[in-house]
Amino acid sequence: MIDPSVGQVFYEDLAIGRTCRSAPIAVTLEEITTFAQRYDPQPFHLDPGAGAQSVFGGLVASGWLTASLTMRLMVLSEFRFGSGVIGLGVESLRWPQPVRPGDTLTAMVEVVAMRASVSQPAHGVVKIRTTTTNERAEVVQAMISNVLVRRRPGATPPPS
Amino acid sequence: MIDPSVGQVFYEDLAIGRTCRSAPIAVTLEEITTFAQRYDPQPFHLDPGAGAQSVFGGLVASGWLTASLTMRLMVLSEFRFGSGVIGLGVESLRWPQPVRPGDTLTAMVEVVAMRASVSQPAHGVVKIRTTTTNERAEVVQAMISNVLVRRRPGATPPPS
Repeated sequence: MIDPSVGQVFYEDLAIGRTCRSAPIAVTLEEITTFAQRYDPQPFHLDPGAGAQSVFGGLVASGWLTASLTMRLMVLSEFRFGSGVIGLGVESLRWPQPVRPGDTLTAMVEVVAMRASVSQPAHGVVKIRTTTTNERAEVVQAMISNVLVRRRPGATPPPS
Repeated sequence: MIDPSVGQVFYEDLAIGRTCRSAPIAVTLEEITTFAQRYDPQPFHLDPGAGAQSVFGGLVASGWLTASLTMRLMVLSEFRFGSGVIGLGVESLRWPQPVRPGDTLTAMVEVVAMRASVSQPAHGVVKIRTTTTNERAEVVQAMISNVLVRRRPGATPPPS
């Protein structure tokens, strides 16, 4: 699924403030309900009538579907990290607005901090802010996370 | 998918320190690769050979599958919150150990803090720690999150 023609990005290629915008992806009613049946079987994710009566005022996607779609957008973006997008952990994850059927999502990734990895000297730890928006530029997910990014083979090791 | 015979849990039914353990769920190779094809198409989630050569030493599940399965376990547990499990946000989310094909996961939810909701007086905000373990009692996911829990209808409103 990964386009091999897109070059890999190594730790040395990144810098604080560098950003990458993903391609868009459309979210269908079928994907929302199929995901919910397996992973978040609550009425407001499964049934439009139940959604209309909920605090959301309509059927909405599980926040975990929004997070999973955002991961897809990141993995297929130009931020093709050398060893993959390996998450060390999430520092915060919010869903300010719900995702609804027919929305089209885009993710913007921004490097906010970088440091060498003590335990894995061939890698660096990069803190990224990932902001997922719909076609009305409303933020549907805001996440701060740390990912492991491989150093360029042969790069000068960092000062210890 | 939700068992209607399980009673709803309201804000007034909860207390700091109260816990709830979910039923177990088995994770198959097919589910791991099907999820990855759509949401996290990286080689170490799709191909056992690529997994063996990765930092994981074998094919592993996407952390977002672990998070999504944990949501399923929570939604179907005895913590059946009155208005659903509505996530306000995640304060931290880590995957200390990967999930591998054949693992069986269980989630433990613990109430760690509670407060009235200022913006939604019919609800309270409950901070929960959700710990997902495999059959060897290894922690595969640790999460702190805040959820919106409905107050029992007719309950005395909180002091303002």
